[in-house]
Amino acid sequence: MSWQFRLGSRARAAPLRASVTRPNAPTMTQTTVSYGTRTLSVKSGKCLNLDNINPHIREAKYAVRGELAVKAESYRSRLAEGDKSLPFESVIFANIGNPQQLDQKPITFFRQVLSLVENPLLLENPEALKTSFGYKQDVIDRAQTLLANVQSVGAYSHSQGAPGIRNSVAQFIEDRDGFPANPQDLFLTAGASSGVSTLLNVICDKPSAGVLVPIPQYPLYTATLSLLNARCVPYLLDEQNAWGTDINVIEKSIADAKAAGTDVRSVVVINPGNPTGASLSPEDIKKVIDIAATEKLVIIADEVYQTNVFTGEFTSFKKRLRQLQQEQPGKYDDVELVSLHSTSKGMVGECGHRGGYFELVGFDPKVQEQIYKLVSIGLCPPVVAQCLLETMVNPPRQGEPSYELYQKEYNGIRDGLHKRALALFNAFQRMEGVECQEPQGAMYLFPTINLPAKAVDAAKAEGRAADEFYALAMLDATGVCVVPGSGFGQKENTLHFRTTFLAPGTDWVERIVKFHSEFMNKYR
Amino acid sequence: MSWQFRLGSRARAAPLRASVTRPNAPTMTQTTVSYGTRTLSVKSGKCLNLDNINPHIREAKYAVRGELAVKAESYRSRLAEGDKSLPFESVIFANIGNPQQLDQKPITFFRQVLSLVENPLLLENPEALKTSFGYKQDVIDRAQTLLANVQSVGAYSHSQGAPGIRNSVAQFIEDRDGFPANPQDLFLTAGASSGVSTLLNVICDKPSAGVLVPIPQYPLYTATLSLLNARCVPYLLDEQNAWGTDINVIEKSIADAKAAGTDVRSVVVINPGNPTGASLSPEDIKKVIDIAATEKLVIIADEVYQTNVFTGEFTSFKKRLRQLQQEQPGKYDDVELVSLHSTSKGMVGECGHRGGYFELVGFDPKVQEQIYKLVSIGLCPPVVAQCLLETMVNPPRQGEPSYELYQKEYNGIRDGLHKRALALFNAFQRMEGVECQEPQGAMYLFPTINLPAKAVDAAKAEGRAADEFYALAMLDATGVCVVPGSGFGQKENTLHFRTTFLAPGTDWVERIVKFHSEFMNKYR
Repeated sequence: MSWQFRLGSRARAAPLRASVTRPNAPTMTQTTVSYGTRTLSVKSGKCLNLDNINPHIREAKYAVRGELAVKAESYRSRLAEGDKSLPFESVIFANIGNPQQLDQKPITFFRQVLSLVENPLLLENPEALKTSFGYKQDVIDRAQTLLANVQSVGAYSHSQGAPGIRNSVAQFIEDRDGFPANPQDLFLTAGASSGVSTLLNVICDKPSAGVLVPIPQYPLYTATLSLLNARCVPYLLDEQNAWGTDINVIEKSIADAKAAGTDVRSVVVINPGNPTGASLSPEDIKKVIDIAATEKLVIIADEVYQTNVFTGEFTSFKKRLRQLQQEQPGKYDDVELVSLHSTSKGMVGECGHRGGYFELVGFDPKVQEQIYKLVSIGLCPPVVAQCLLETMVNPPRQGEPSYELYQKEYNGIRDGLHKRALALFNAFQRMEGVECQEPQGAMYLFPTINLPAKAVDAAKAEGRAADEFYALAMLDATGVCVVPGSGFGQKENTLHFRTTFLAPGTDWVERIVKFHSEFMNKYR
Repeated sequence: MSWQFRLGSRARAAPLRASVTRPNAPTMTQTTVSYGTRTLSVKSGKCLNLDNINPHIREAKYAVRGELAVKAESYRSRLAEGDKSLPFESVIFANIGNPQQLDQKPITFFRQVLSLVENPLLLENPEALKTSFGYKQDVIDRAQTLLANVQSVGAYSHSQGAPGIRNSVAQFIEDRDGFPANPQDLFLTAGASSGVSTLLNVICDKPSAGVLVPIPQYPLYTATLSLLNARCVPYLLDEQNAWGTDINVIEKSIADAKAAGTDVRSVVVINPGNPTGASLSPEDIKKVIDIAATEKLVIIADEVYQTNVFTGEFTSFKKRLRQLQQEQPGKYDDVELVSLHSTSKGMVGECGHRGGYFELVGFDPKVQEQIYKLVSIGLCPPVVAQCLLETMVNPPRQGEPSYELYQKEYNGIRDGLHKRALALFNAFQRMEGVECQEPQGAMYLFPTINLPAKAVDAAKAEGRAADEFYALAMLDATGVCVVPGSGFGQKENTLHFRTTFLAPGTDWVERIVKFHSEFMNKYR
């Protein structure tokens, strides 16, 4: 119980891992400085420099908020300061699924409830809420229930999230799947991203640990694996087959990874896909579950776009797993599945609130305890976001006072997204050398671009990937910020970009069309 | 630009770090199962078990939400369900600084503003806000300014936080210190905890990297260092000298660590202290800065309790550093300092919102870029919490309509905390074998407990540290949950516990007094 003893395992003299040899890691950097006519070599006295920070941070790549996004932000700021020298009058952030930045209105019921949990004193005058602000009784009731659950949105909650809110999420899952969920297996999170980070942290136990990631993917996965010094085991989605998931490709990836000494521990499925929008059929889900059962892989089902589905129908991995467990008792008992969801996507689009959850299915309780400990170090997810999550999974029902407006707003957003997706798709159809799969879901299109050899050479001369060169040229010419396909991974010798279809209007689409035509003419 | 190339550094065959040898890491576990009269040895087919998850998670300890807190929660839940069999009628969570769980009222101005940013439609009827709910014009103005800055609290902000809010934080720092701050050096966070995690992640580059941590400390530090597989280099605070920071002790710790092959890279100072409450004098701060300058250590100044000061006065590390840089030009130019602050502590106490910031001082811009990239992978801190932070650093000023109420509430909380601290301190004075330093600040007391040898033996028989045994007995007898000193680290052969002084009333204090007397009698 002395500190020597209590901290023993951490302050040990002999580390568990061998020290890293970093060839470019001086503890001091040499800088050349000019003083008048003399040039001196002086030592910079900083502790930290680019060469001696955690190397895994340096290696991580995250293009969604990378160079292009930083440049777009500087354009936005110049325009805001009245700069008239740019060839466009607005910046369109099509690089990130951020609907409310692009003027999507929040759903009224959600925000009314949140205003009341933020200031419970408003509840002391319900009549004024109704007559002056149009709040309905169900809004007031919901806020009171939530406050009874969390006490105050200013208090830390249980580290897994407030128990009452987890009950609502469990009910939502049961209603969706037809199979029960246990609130003790639910972990509320600050957005799905923090959940992914938690889970990969638990799964990656050593540098040879590998995680299967679809290509193209949302780069959170590769970035987090870099941070954890673990291995990404890529499996290519089939663009010609509507970005389908081919189980033979996954099997081949596993075999190759094993041959390279990788301990493949988990498979990530993004369903519906980001950036592809593709939804997996129940048959394809079964194939993934089968391979997970055979190979003992933890399935990470990123299901944050589960309501953003235009074609086909969303089937959750949890539902399919439970069906299989019923159909073939015993065979699937050991499958470990995590399903992630979020308040940032869907018709909710409340990215800034940082809400979400994951459900653990089939996990060893002792592992679950460790996950609890890990999240408890960060104390708890934002409590307002937990309340928002509750309203998302438990929206107004038919017959309740707020139902009609909720339904109208929800459907309006859904239909608007579909229309914009189709308009953008149609524009791509008109563009030379651009091929795009029909919009299926999520918030993105991910067209192939066939660029002239001269453009590829010009990119090479600048030391850039050709799609990055193209996306930068697009930003400079139009103010539209997209993300090059190389930020998500793509098949060799193909080029793409990802754009959201969230921005209102068609002006920005026409800007892209015009830019593309000029770009092709310039480099033909 | 093929995926092979883009993912090359991650999907490499030869890992940068040598593989960990885990003696207890089977990929399958052997379980003995009974079927009728036969006993079979079957293989558990789970991928993940306690022995093969990330070992650094298993090693991490975080007592603030550990076994005692879990047991306290189960007592709370039993009481809520009407269980009458327990020897107490309420559970007091004195284990964690969570004021609003213990009925501290939020400050009205903050929550009024947040209710408006959550539902901007309320702003369409300012008259009703004023007449029916007492909102003042400055509340309405502030909400409008914040909304102009963030557009919507449902939109992702800049990954470092909304620029306008960072401007306010910079102004606050300048007003506090008399030296300017640059908004580009500010990173808004989800509570100070996430900031600490980010910074230690950057600093710890290899298993032999070490960070100086005060003992006793807030266990976030040791837990995060465990997760990062880096070394805690403990330095003992001087209990007999009001938990002072002794620079000779730090120097000795550095020398010992170096002798053990540790690359000491950073020094953590918690000022005012957690769990000790002690504030550093300007002279002591200078000594820490001197040692950081000499040894090239990044100073991590955890200043989240900067307004919780009863005796002495808070001086920020940033202010002291800037003074020294003026007084002795050149000598301190290279010092790297991070200062952390939070919306969870002080008189704000808004833990559930998860707000805070850190300021980087003297960092290499290229390192700062990497920190930006790292936080951008998590997208952004909660935007409502950013708005709350803005109201905290920019509260109503004299002459403004909300000033009077704000001032009254703020002072009421401050005086109440001081009174409760003194009442608890006085109770400890009456208790046999308990020694406690006078309350100086923060939200905690950390008394020494001298327990009879029979109690120490009884603890040993249960395989527990004696202070843990004592704290469990206290919880079982009184419903009061405190944290044993071993959770924070303590000098060899001493025992302590940490309790907050947040709970209202004196009943719970009397419960502790009575329990302690009975415990001492039982084991005398």
